[in-house]
Amino acid sequence: MKSIQTELKQLNKNLHKMIAAENPILYSAAEQLFNAEGKRIRPTIIFLISKIINKHQIISTEQKRLAEITEIIHTASLVHDDIVDNGDQRRGMKTVHNIFNNKIAVLAGDFLFAQSSWYLANLNNLNVVKTISKIITDFAEGEVQQGMKSFDSQISIEEYIEKSFYKTASLLACSCKATTILNKSNKKVQNDFYLYGKHLGLAFQVIDDILDITGLSKDLGKPAGSDLINGNLTAPLIFALNTKSQLPQMINQEFLFKDNINETINMIKKTNATQKAKDIAEEHIQLAIHIIKNKYSYTNNKELLVLTYNLLNRIK
Amino acid sequence: MKSIQTELKQLNKNLHKMIAAENPILYSAAEQLFNAEGKRIRPTIIFLISKIINKHQIISTEQKRLAEITEIIHTASLVHDDIVDNGDQRRGMKTVHNIFNNKIAVLAGDFLFAQSSWYLANLNNLNVVKTISKIITDFAEGEVQQGMKSFDSQISIEEYIEKSFYKTASLLACSCKATTILNKSNKKVQNDFYLYGKHLGLAFQVIDDILDITGLSKDLGKPAGSDLINGNLTAPLIFALNTKSQLPQMINQEFLFKDNINETINMIKKTNATQKAKDIAEEHIQLAIHIIKNKYSYTNNKELLVLTYNLLNRIK
Repeated sequence: MKSIQTELKQLNKNLHKMIAAENPILYSAAEQLFNAEGKRIRPTIIFLISKIINKHQIISTEQKRLAEITEIIHTASLVHDDIVDNGDQRRGMKTVHNIFNNKIAVLAGDFLFAQSSWYLANLNNLNVVKTISKIITDFAEGEVQQGMKSFDSQISIEEYIEKSFYKTASLLACSCKATTILNKSNKKVQNDFYLYGKHLGLAFQVIDDILDITGLSKDLGKPAGSDLINGNLTAPLIFALNTKSQLPQMINQEFLFKDNINETINMIKKTNATQKAKDIAEEHIQLAIHIIKNKYSYTNNKELLVLTYNLLNRIK
Repeated sequence: MKSIQTELKQLNKNLHKMIAAENPILYSAAEQLFNAEGKRIRPTIIFLISKIINKHQIISTEQKRLAEITEIIHTASLVHDDIVDNGDQRRGMKTVHNIFNNKIAVLAGDFLFAQSSWYLANLNNLNVVKTISKIITDFAEGEVQQGMKSFDSQISIEEYIEKSFYKTASLLACSCKATTILNKSNKKVQNDFYLYGKHLGLAFQVIDDILDITGLSKDLGKPAGSDLINGNLTAPLIFALNTKSQLPQMINQEFLFKDNINETINMIKKTNATQKAKDIAEEHIQLAIHIIKNKYSYTNNKELLVLTYNLLNRIK
């Protein structure tokens, strides 16, 4: 996105200043995460929405700060997401909690959440504080829902979508809404962009989950099937459950044998499950696009539309 | 404290309503902690300060809500404090993370922190939001400082006090200050009660650490020497370090042998280290009392004075 390159560069600089912890351990735990993620999808969306709704397409200082805050919250949630149960060590992969340890990961996450609360309060907009603090309760709710359904072959697609909303889509929905609140947009506009963020977030999660099955480890930056290994049963697997009778047993055995993960991935690929998952992602992308295209066509909506369409290209 | 019994009863009722998570696991993780702690020392202090500074000694709805919020934050910090490193499993004691597991403990803590942010925002006072969000960054800072000095026999009493400020006293200091902000007190009063809370919090921590050495397991609700086992070197041990030459070696070996903890406790008891730690606690209690007694003597300060004095009785 050429039009927001300057803003994204500035965001990276500011993030490093914002998380300046006095403590070297907290600092390095946080810093390595800021370096790791380069995509900045959440800030990009906030910037593009700002350009659509703001006068003269100028992104306000508060909206830029909001973008930084959402990135800090996202990073904090990643750190806490990486903490594993003691019993799960054998399945452990190389994550922050391995490089440092569980305790430091908990604290680094708390520290980032707290820093984000501080900057949030300093935006001096209570409505935004309320909207954004909802993200973290939803995230915890989603994580627990996911944990409760771990290796549960009875999981339904509806439960999967609900969990995905709490865990992923709420952050985007609330961030998009907060962007409009900072522009003093009316309730209708606020609600439009909340729904846009919600559908985009759900599509985003489903696409990520498809890539965990169809992607190559080198592209993913983690082994394919990582979700399965951790008992996180996602859309492609859920759709395959009805057609492959061996699957429930392998799930109930928690993919006991080394080959089970590859076997499962191959089984899923032989069904139409991935296509069904793609259909869900496409449906949510269409719903998101519908909002931007029909209601905000009089403004500079092109870049956001392109970004939204392009999400689907990741799985094509 | 007879005069605030009604308020404390109502607080207990409200806490259960406030943490009503949709999810049964989050709910039980949070609930068991609310049931565990009966003392409600932080809310008590907020109520008593409110009675000193408010007109007609009536505690406002916002101050009651603040008391609830600080108790939720305190509980969240306890949950995260209980999460252990994987490497520390052999030292593990029966804590939330054992009953549930690390992951659930992280999420339950996040959920409580997030709930407190939400209620905080709904107090509609940005100055209070800023003051209280400082607590959580300080807590993480203190925990990491403590972790970095784990089993470090070179730790100084100054480092111990600094860590105790971040980990414990900041919560009380900021809560006391926020109580005065909600009463629209001037900056001088705000600062007085910040300092009162800070000194009380430091005394509180030192006393707790003395009890970990001198107390009986049945009174403590956990084994004596728990801090030592976890490598958390506290005032009584630090003062004993200079006089007992065997201590540094036992610390460096991380109390390798089962008897080492009892030996260490007995060694400390034979020195004047506990008395020196008591002196520090008393000094901070005196500083706290000085503020209340001299500056707020024209108001109803008796109960807060009694509470402050009585803290010392715990170690007599």
